[in-house]
Amino acid sequence: MTKILAVNAGSSTLKWKLFSMPDETVIASGLVDRLNLPDSVFTVKQPGVEKYEVKKDNIDYHLAAAMVLTHLKDAGIVKHLHEITGIGHRVVAGGEVFTDSAVITDKSLRQIHKLAEFAPLHNPIEEEYINIFQQLLPDVPQVAVFDTALYANMPKINALYPIPYEYYKQYGARKYGAHGTSHRYVSARTAELLGKPLSDLKLITLHLGSGSSVTAFDHGKVIDTSMGFTPLAGVMMATRSGDIDPSLVSFLAEKMHLKMSKMIDILNQKSGLLGISQLSPDQRDLEKAEDSNPQAKLALDMFVNRVVRYVGSYVAELNGLDALVFTAGSGENGIGMRQRIVDQLSYFGIQIDHERNQVRGKEQVISPDGAPVTVMVVPTNEELMIVRDVQRLTQK
Amino acid sequence: MTKILAVNAGSSTLKWKLFSMPDETVIASGLVDRLNLPDSVFTVKQPGVEKYEVKKDNIDYHLAAAMVLTHLKDAGIVKHLHEITGIGHRVVAGGEVFTDSAVITDKSLRQIHKLAEFAPLHNPIEEEYINIFQQLLPDVPQVAVFDTALYANMPKINALYPIPYEYYKQYGARKYGAHGTSHRYVSARTAELLGKPLSDLKLITLHLGSGSSVTAFDHGKVIDTSMGFTPLAGVMMATRSGDIDPSLVSFLAEKMHLKMSKMIDILNQKSGLLGISQLSPDQRDLEKAEDSNPQAKLALDMFVNRVVRYVGSYVAELNGLDALVFTAGSGENGIGMRQRIVDQLSYFGIQIDHERNQVRGKEQVISPDGAPVTVMVVPTNEELMIVRDVQRLTQK
Repeated sequence: MTKILAVNAGSSTLKWKLFSMPDETVIASGLVDRLNLPDSVFTVKQPGVEKYEVKKDNIDYHLAAAMVLTHLKDAGIVKHLHEITGIGHRVVAGGEVFTDSAVITDKSLRQIHKLAEFAPLHNPIEEEYINIFQQLLPDVPQVAVFDTALYANMPKINALYPIPYEYYKQYGARKYGAHGTSHRYVSARTAELLGKPLSDLKLITLHLGSGSSVTAFDHGKVIDTSMGFTPLAGVMMATRSGDIDPSLVSFLAEKMHLKMSKMIDILNQKSGLLGISQLSPDQRDLEKAEDSNPQAKLALDMFVNRVVRYVGSYVAELNGLDALVFTAGSGENGIGMRQRIVDQLSYFGIQIDHERNQVRGKEQVISPDGAPVTVMVVPTNEELMIVRDVQRLTQK
Repeated sequence: MTKILAVNAGSSTLKWKLFSMPDETVIASGLVDRLNLPDSVFTVKQPGVEKYEVKKDNIDYHLAAAMVLTHLKDAGIVKHLHEITGIGHRVVAGGEVFTDSAVITDKSLRQIHKLAEFAPLHNPIEEEYINIFQQLLPDVPQVAVFDTALYANMPKINALYPIPYEYYKQYGARKYGAHGTSHRYVSARTAELLGKPLSDLKLITLHLGSGSSVTAFDHGKVIDTSMGFTPLAGVMMATRSGDIDPSLVSFLAEKMHLKMSKMIDILNQKSGLLGISQLSPDQRDLEKAEDSNPQAKLALDMFVNRVVRYVGSYVAELNGLDALVFTAGSGENGIGMRQRIVDQLSYFGIQIDHERNQVRGKEQVISPDGAPVTVMVVPTNEELMIVRDVQRLTQK
């Protein structure tokens, strides 16, 4: 039995999951939180074992990675580190270069480095962790799994923006999308559950979490997605605005004497559900408050509206629909939210079975039997997709 | 018989139409072009009369208005100027204050003045013409007809952007829409032609010209429109980008060391069909070129796609549709464009009859008999709407 490690690194967190392959079971998972800060926290979970937690000041990226590997050995999760036969890293920006996950080589690492301009807060950190794991386990192949790869080959009519064409050529100005690993997992799993090849299906996948995105699959090919050049665009989110008239951003920046970069920060961090409700970015808080708080209700209604609009536009682009799939935090657990969304889509043959919809975090069809469109909940599993890619690309 | 003048003033043009009321026939119309420039041109058309044209250097706003009135009298179009019983002005920005057209008073004129911040290139000029006509014909009531009034009462879920709520309260940051007078005329006329009250219908009106917009009417109420805080947003247009990730605008401004205001100019003037095709902003030019020019074809395909997406999202918002209506330049005359759009909407019961679609600039149903959704061409008539509003508000 081999083991493959999935790594999801952020600026202040290192999340990881160790899978036993090929049976795809999770042996252990962990989080190193508050990196480079006082009171960094190192935690590990194993099925059937009490959670392990230590605090230590200022764990840096290198130490975090080393602690993970040391703990795996010390806790007997692996006997020898060479049981780990591959490491997969989530990488945010793959540009147009990476249309699939890629084995780490000098060349691919240079490309990831170059693509930092599209994800300045993410790619450099991911690159650093790839280098760190290369030092720690020099013989283990590593794979980069890009959030954008699913969309790199999207049709030009959807990938391009109606702006001067040379901006695409010169600056890479196009839609790159995000959440691709999640949409890829969910679309594949949906096809399995429906017992049909993905290439026979018209699908819309709704990844509704604190970040939300909508993707349209036409017979196995992605034709459109709601996130844009960056993950700011698309539907309204917990703290992100989604689509908005760019003139308004410029107008507000001038009114408030703010730099554009500051305005973009506000659109990323202070907008969405939080901005409208002035209460919370969390749908659950807003659902509790909405009966007595009109802005909480407005925020939820706007969220539903923006998702419904995207579903409508993608049904139009697909000119049909076989299945609508909910995933991620609110998609998997938001019973009321799913009901509100589907209730507005009956003209498209999209219907919900109230009883079936009483489900959280489980694979389930929630449309009535015989409905023209199958509505489903399919919990996402990005880490599984990552280790599968490592397996596929390194262990033929 | 009374006469009412409709005035549509821009920074370098004064367009006008004189209607005989209540029979609503056009007695004369004209254009003063190249205002404040060498070789200004003053033209007048009358049914059955040869076009009148004079050139004169540097006609200013005041002279332009005076020349129109003088010509009406000199050419015998009116016997006495007091036959003119009202003047209606197109005004671009009415904010949230004006939910209907408004008789000009000191108060309403002050409000129009204040709203200049939402249309700095338009409202001040329109205000100036209102003052000029007040000087020239002090006893004639004037009415402001706002492009935005149709949308002022739009539901908040659609009018508001998912940004901090206080920006709406403090700065008026919301969707105001545009082309309202056109959509209002066309929706009313569609109801007449269908022999049903507007309050019984779910309609989508497509105003497709060099500026394009899409509006959704739910039982007589406007629920959404594609233009935003400014007319930059929405579908792709001749030279405007329509919707685009604001982060990209900020990214490009930085790359090219341009101010945001300059970037917004580029999105307004160098984008859209022109930007993608690098050939022409005119659909007719692109249709001629598309067989041999992939970028011309891409531009047209993207335009169709953006319109189709909006139709889909509004069918979703309406959760149904009775009629889809084409108007304005390309909507009224673009036989091929209408075909391309409708061909992608068959899942919604939207179909086209190829023979019926061979029509330009004429009221006509272009869907087959018995189709679930009626597809129509309804030429717009903003000036008629303007004079009707003058009549309604001043001559009870």
